[in-house]
Amino acid sequence: MRKILLFSFLVIFTVHSNAQQTDSVTIKKFFNEALTNSVAYKNLDKLVNTIGGRLAGSPEAARAVEWAKQAMIDAGADTVWLQEVWVPHWVRGEKEKGMVQDGKGMKEVPVCALGMSIGTPDWGVSAPLIEVKSFDELKKLGTEKIKGKIVFYNHPFDQTFINTFDAYSEAGKYRWAGASEAARYGAVASIVRSMAINQDDFPHTGAMGYNDSLPKIPAAAVSTNGAEVISQILKTNPEARFYLKQSCKMMDSVLSYNVIGEIKGSEHPEEIIDVGGHLDSWETGKGATDDGTGVAQSIEVLRLFKTTGVKPKRTIRAIAFMNEENGLKGGKKYGAEAERKKEKHIAAMESDAGGFTPHGFGLNMKKEQREKVLQWKSLLLPYGLWSWDGDGDGADISPITDKGVPGFGLSVDSQRYFDLHHAASDTFDKVNRRELELGAASMAAMIYLISQYGL
Amino acid sequence: MRKILLFSFLVIFTVHSNAQQTDSVTIKKFFNEALTNSVAYKNLDKLVNTIGGRLAGSPEAARAVEWAKQAMIDAGADTVWLQEVWVPHWVRGEKEKGMVQDGKGMKEVPVCALGMSIGTPDWGVSAPLIEVKSFDELKKLGTEKIKGKIVFYNHPFDQTFINTFDAYSEAGKYRWAGASEAARYGAVASIVRSMAINQDDFPHTGAMGYNDSLPKIPAAAVSTNGAEVISQILKTNPEARFYLKQSCKMMDSVLSYNVIGEIKGSEHPEEIIDVGGHLDSWETGKGATDDGTGVAQSIEVLRLFKTTGVKPKRTIRAIAFMNEENGLKGGKKYGAEAERKKEKHIAAMESDAGGFTPHGFGLNMKKEQREKVLQWKSLLLPYGLWSWDGDGDGADISPITDKGVPGFGLSVDSQRYFDLHHAASDTFDKVNRRELELGAASMAAMIYLISQYGL
Repeated sequence: MRKILLFSFLVIFTVHSNAQQTDSVTIKKFFNEALTNSVAYKNLDKLVNTIGGRLAGSPEAARAVEWAKQAMIDAGADTVWLQEVWVPHWVRGEKEKGMVQDGKGMKEVPVCALGMSIGTPDWGVSAPLIEVKSFDELKKLGTEKIKGKIVFYNHPFDQTFINTFDAYSEAGKYRWAGASEAARYGAVASIVRSMAINQDDFPHTGAMGYNDSLPKIPAAAVSTNGAEVISQILKTNPEARFYLKQSCKMMDSVLSYNVIGEIKGSEHPEEIIDVGGHLDSWETGKGATDDGTGVAQSIEVLRLFKTTGVKPKRTIRAIAFMNEENGLKGGKKYGAEAERKKEKHIAAMESDAGGFTPHGFGLNMKKEQREKVLQWKSLLLPYGLWSWDGDGDGADISPITDKGVPGFGLSVDSQRYFDLHHAASDTFDKVNRRELELGAASMAAMIYLISQYGL
Repeated sequence: MRKILLFSFLVIFTVHSNAQQTDSVTIKKFFNEALTNSVAYKNLDKLVNTIGGRLAGSPEAARAVEWAKQAMIDAGADTVWLQEVWVPHWVRGEKEKGMVQDGKGMKEVPVCALGMSIGTPDWGVSAPLIEVKSFDELKKLGTEKIKGKIVFYNHPFDQTFINTFDAYSEAGKYRWAGASEAARYGAVASIVRSMAINQDDFPHTGAMGYNDSLPKIPAAAVSTNGAEVISQILKTNPEARFYLKQSCKMMDSVLSYNVIGEIKGSEHPEEIIDVGGHLDSWETGKGATDDGTGVAQSIEVLRLFKTTGVKPKRTIRAIAFMNEENGLKGGKKYGAEAERKKEKHIAAMESDAGGFTPHGFGLNMKKEQREKVLQWKSLLLPYGLWSWDGDGDGADISPITDKGVPGFGLSVDSQRYFDLHHAASDTFDKVNRRELELGAASMAAMIYLISQYGL
């Protein structure tokens, strides 16, 4: 009995150990290939520098769809197809203008319209300015103090968070809901300090939303330096006025597409692993780190499997989602189609935190699945993937993961992201080739393990 | 008996737990202060943008000494002093010129002299070019093929290393020893592919050394793009010649200084903890990441203790070392003086890998000391300090740690370092404020723990 047990133990141990060995070799293959022959960086260069910013519904977004389709074909996907998505089409119009009254006259500060905001009248809007740090403060001031004014939300990022996404989560509500909350008390427009962690002159756009039960007023972002200037002026001149002009508006919806490329699984082709980023971007910048990098990495995952000859047991689908920034229509359509077709999605991964050095994965899943994933830690730690405590995955895959499919978010070094996010500074030169490639290989490695062992 | 044991256990546990709690609060204080009120970034700006590149012996290095002294006083050091160091004084002279013969004539490629190299004659040196990948290849070619030629070491960084310092270690010998090895077989000059991991047009300088038993020949670096160009030309035209002109030379030694700032320990003032970076830098760039960041961080460590009111039990010394790049005279002098004065150094730390996001510490120490340090891991993991396997500390502190003093090297994200290292691209804009500050706080946290508990 003892001998049999020992024998069984040895067999199990040997099998397990051989599997680990094979996995380790495969993962090394992915990293070696990514770091020496990656196409991700070249792909990103093309997307960012020949197409540029590409908000859903724009001609640039349409060109990006064609680019993604070709890039997936070139990566060696077995099948590539477009999935129809109707998207909102918001346009910024002319360059916005923002001016604050200082002692001597009107001083220009860098502003940009928040995405989905209404425009001002052609002649702009001019009104006394009132600064608040929070919704609580706004509420206390009430209609008496707010009515007829432009509300200036000056809520800086909390620098003491180590992960900058925590600061973004905390401050983000003033961008999203600031206009309607100000309108509740009779404000005529609202401006918000940019959702940025550094001090500079770039205004950072991003989606806002209106509360339909309240009047719609124009909403803009001011650069962090501009916010300091305004705040300083208000200290000495509390009666200062602000002038805002923006000509943004909503157009009719446009037919656009998610771009999908697939490698069929060899043993369980019906089980699908999703990996994606979003193809659309704000047009203030070039959409390099948000989220050209995630798209380039997801396509690179397909290429890494094909080039190294690693055949996944389960099906891998790379998706370049459309319209994450101002509607999430692509993610929603993908989720709805998966449900309608009764597809079996076993995991979904997104890279949408910039192409910075990967640290690990956010795991949005049940305890048993998380425990299974954590068994693979030792295979990935040699590549610097140490962070497994987060639970963030990604907006585009949320319609899939909300149904209980395990979600993975590539977790990366977050320090530089909110210097660039949604601003003119989000350009190709901010992406480091190796950091991008390490992310792509990390994604491929995790997807390989899921494709081998399921969840 | 049982009750007494239980009681003892509770007392120990409570004491331990309270200590952990206090440590955790103190460490959080350092990070909060560094991320909200740091002076490190402003200090670095001043050093890099008003003084710039500052090779030992240069007027810029002398100005940097004055800057560091004032910065340490401003940081609140109890005592600040200069330690005399005689340093070599090598000057680059006029901008170097490198040209390779392609089919049509001479084509210019970006070159720079390696530090400590001799110059060429005024009219330059022109000779047939021969490419080698390694010393083995050089040896096989021997005098017959090498004599009278310019040897071109084209050994690229191995991209498959995850930590780029491993690639540097592997390729570095061709920069350091390439000239003498080529001279061994009669070469008239040598050029080396830049010690860089990216492809661009910046030549990367760095120290080389001559073997005194062999003739001295001029040594230069060529940019990675230039190396590709040359290699391509040699494929179609193996008879191609190279022209190199550089007017660098050694001058008389110069009196310079290490700059030292100290906070006296409250309980064990005789036990000294060193923390430093090097003040000198190559003058091809501005010496931002190498090693302005390490100096700014070391000074910030002093400021963090002073500003937060945390009184270290043991003495903390920040040192801005002189002449790391081409002689290590500052580190050697500091070590010799410590020995002469019979000082008791209990730990030494260096930051000389760039001001990038900190990952942990390289630990160069005995097993027992390493085990003690590893007990503090859980206090530092919330700040992303996960990497504790390395054993690299720093060149400047090596004369101290070689005597058995435990050495700590701040370990950072290494992906971008060798894009910039020793090149004109090493400028202030490459440093991210928060990454720099996180590093400074990480250093302060570790030094605090050492100052509390010893090693």
